[in-house]
Amino acid sequence: MFKHSQLESVKAWLAHPTHAAMPLHARIQRAIRQMILDGVLAPGKPLPASRPLAKSLGVSRDTIETAYSQLHAEGFIERHVGSGSFVAEMTEFATGRRISRRDPLSRNQTPNLSKRGNAMFSSGGVRELLAPRPFAHGVPETRSFPLQLWERLERQVLREHGTQVLLHGDPQGTEALRSAIADYVNLERGARATPDRVLILTSSQQALTLCANMLLDPGDRIFIEDPAYYGARKAFDAAGLECLPVRVDGQGVVVEQITAETRKVKAVFLTPSHQFPTGATLTLDRRLALIEWANRHQAWIIEDDYDSEFHYAGKPTACVQGLDPHDRTIYIGTFTKSLFPGLRIGYVVLPPQLVQPMTVARTLLDGHSAPLAQLTLARFMEGGHFGAHVRTMRSTYADRLGVLASLVGKHLSHFVEAQVPIGGLQMSCVLTCNMPERTAIDVARRAGIEIMGLSALHANGEPKAGFLMGFAAYTPNEIEGAVRKFADALGAVAKS
Amino acid sequence: MFKHSQLESVKAWLAHPTHAAMPLHARIQRAIRQMILDGVLAPGKPLPASRPLAKSLGVSRDTIETAYSQLHAEGFIERHVGSGSFVAEMTEFATGRRISRRDPLSRNQTPNLSKRGNAMFSSGGVRELLAPRPFAHGVPETRSFPLQLWERLERQVLREHGTQVLLHGDPQGTEALRSAIADYVNLERGARATPDRVLILTSSQQALTLCANMLLDPGDRIFIEDPAYYGARKAFDAAGLECLPVRVDGQGVVVEQITAETRKVKAVFLTPSHQFPTGATLTLDRRLALIEWANRHQAWIIEDDYDSEFHYAGKPTACVQGLDPHDRTIYIGTFTKSLFPGLRIGYVVLPPQLVQPMTVARTLLDGHSAPLAQLTLARFMEGGHFGAHVRTMRSTYADRLGVLASLVGKHLSHFVEAQVPIGGLQMSCVLTCNMPERTAIDVARRAGIEIMGLSALHANGEPKAGFLMGFAAYTPNEIEGAVRKFADALGAVAKS
Repeated sequence: MFKHSQLESVKAWLAHPTHAAMPLHARIQRAIRQMILDGVLAPGKPLPASRPLAKSLGVSRDTIETAYSQLHAEGFIERHVGSGSFVAEMTEFATGRRISRRDPLSRNQTPNLSKRGNAMFSSGGVRELLAPRPFAHGVPETRSFPLQLWERLERQVLREHGTQVLLHGDPQGTEALRSAIADYVNLERGARATPDRVLILTSSQQALTLCANMLLDPGDRIFIEDPAYYGARKAFDAAGLECLPVRVDGQGVVVEQITAETRKVKAVFLTPSHQFPTGATLTLDRRLALIEWANRHQAWIIEDDYDSEFHYAGKPTACVQGLDPHDRTIYIGTFTKSLFPGLRIGYVVLPPQLVQPMTVARTLLDGHSAPLAQLTLARFMEGGHFGAHVRTMRSTYADRLGVLASLVGKHLSHFVEAQVPIGGLQMSCVLTCNMPERTAIDVARRAGIEIMGLSALHANGEPKAGFLMGFAAYTPNEIEGAVRKFADALGAVAKS
Repeated sequence: MFKHSQLESVKAWLAHPTHAAMPLHARIQRAIRQMILDGVLAPGKPLPASRPLAKSLGVSRDTIETAYSQLHAEGFIERHVGSGSFVAEMTEFATGRRISRRDPLSRNQTPNLSKRGNAMFSSGGVRELLAPRPFAHGVPETRSFPLQLWERLERQVLREHGTQVLLHGDPQGTEALRSAIADYVNLERGARATPDRVLILTSSQQALTLCANMLLDPGDRIFIEDPAYYGARKAFDAAGLECLPVRVDGQGVVVEQITAETRKVKAVFLTPSHQFPTGATLTLDRRLALIEWANRHQAWIIEDDYDSEFHYAGKPTACVQGLDPHDRTIYIGTFTKSLFPGLRIGYVVLPPQLVQPMTVARTLLDGHSAPLAQLTLARFMEGGHFGAHVRTMRSTYADRLGVLASLVGKHLSHFVEAQVPIGGLQMSCVLTCNMPERTAIDVARRAGIEIMGLSALHANGEPKAGFLMGFAAYTPNEIEGAVRKFADALGAVAKS
């Protein structure tokens, strides 16, 4: 018979509320299996006969028999006619379990990752704040999002499509959404898209991963802006590419450096609408020179138009994709900033010859995107709600940028000089005092304020010390409170 | 002044319904930009003065001035005081556009993909039928899914969390869902999971991609089953791994072949619950031998438990992960088959030392999964609805398997022998007539029936010709209709 403690352990399993939905025999079977796995019941040990065990547990003998049959079928116990049931002789197994229990250190061993795995891990990845606080950058205001409207559209989609939306979706994305996106980028961004050239993804990060792997091999060179968007640089590093930084000035990336390069470079990545993080807009002549270079070298232009919806002075310049007659440009867009990050929808507008390859590659990465979210978004766009939302947010963000710029001028002018951008969701500030960038970031963090240092975004040269301040997700009151707190904290450090 | 056709083209833009939401000046600006991009307005060409153009279009002069200012800001036009506005001198640009127009062939050039990109493209990817028809495999029945219950739970989540669900989610997955999954796999699959060892992904395909890249480098060896799940093989090929096929018999993969291998092999991929496609269950002693091998060589076991919810005879054997005291096993699960494919939620249960590296890598691939779907699913599981749904579907699928097996016996016994599995969503049939597998597949397809050939899943040896028939997503009536149609079509071919 079981020891008292063993019997109690079985009874505890039977009574546990999370097991309530399981049949009695299954609960008994699992309780005994767990004791075998834990080494509490050693190999070769006899199990109680079914009749006395049934009696001790207050269940029928059939119940015990069913549990034992299942344990036998799984190979955990052996049954010998006449002499009863025994824990199977699996010595390595039981020993292994006991060793692990005794040696908790073995659980903390360094993982043997692949070389590329180690590189990806040590990059730190692309982490976003879960609960944004001033001045975390790149986050839109979501508290005023028309969620009820969104829910109503989702209900409409469900009524019309029913359980159809539960099936696998087209890996290229639903036709309705691809059409809505093509119309949008053609109209608002001067792109040349057709629905059959749009590929729906989960994010611009996925677009970067796809481009890096499908267009370049490890060791291949790609031009990136200097300073550059960290998410892109990390995706390229993860893919084993060699990144060649290109200087950025007030007119965007310095294209002469690209056209003067004599080594083979297969692609260029850029953020031409509002360069990240400087906010510079790439001029038209540089765009055309870049297209000319890409065509001559059969290279790819990867254009990340991540926040072009939010341009506060005049209209944003037409995208590079729309200017490129040679089909060398891949246009990346996302709804993370224009709608909300939890949506998980981004997209690329592809040259025709890349549509099939990229779609196939996407099925290997993760299949396809959820159809319900795509159909709801398509309806949101078709109904004009997307345009309306972007217009509302553009005006809100313009106000907030004004508030931030004026408060920084008022309270932080001893420490920094603000560089007010013409668009985007963040403003960069250059440190004008002697304080090291790292100190400013630490002071901010201790005061509960998030800022991103500029130096880490630079590859070469001597970057000016400074930081990025996101403003879009915070009300004027929140901005004011945080600027004052930051000013006090900086002041205290400067005095000490 | 513009030519008549040019003026008409501007007017058409203004009147186009999809442009209705745009301000008048923006429509005029875009119409002219398009004509410049198209080469209709050549470089250097003068633009109409604002006053006569305003008159022709019936708009105010200010409107034209605003449009021209924007075109000027973008660099498309030049403005000279006293002499008016001209299309900017951008000869390469305009020429490029015209060349492309004349040479439509240039659009169909072979894309210059990377070597790995070409390999991914030529694999054909992992495509799923959008509208499943008999006997497409691996698809669950979704027409009876409790969609209204799901919607109600989603509304609850939205009421409680509000716009919080719109923000970035934890890249490891929401705590509530990780807890629900840990409870589930521990209870139902004999796993040893804790919420902090679960990583939420979009699909088991994403899990395979992550494992292949994080744990192995190009050229590294991995054991796979022979025959094998095509999605896994393609993910490993895409990652540049060398796949070593291991024979499968009635007790699952032949582990002796693995333990006898003298070359360094870093991982093994297997489907131990119901081997894909044979349906074999890996025996306990082989599981233990595999764990022992993995521990001795510090290799990884990648366990894909893709449809273990659907086991029709007795209970499924506990998973390998729960038996492994050495933390060498990565357990992959998915809701694609147990709930619905459009959900896009899969997961891995990881050894503790892999949790951080895999989470970081996931942020580089595509950030995180949509919080709303995760929270709704967590609630669905917590409320016992997941368990109830699986029980209902298990009984439905067992019935459908019975129907299919009996109909194949009745109508197709001249051609095939059915191998009735103890679980899963498909049954394999071995061709017993002289018909080549390819012919059977083509005959089926012409009759509107989908079957997957078995030969393509094999790497070595002489596979028996045959095919897989999925049964889960089709009613007994649909199954009967399709079997009869298939029998008629096969009969007609056999006679001819």
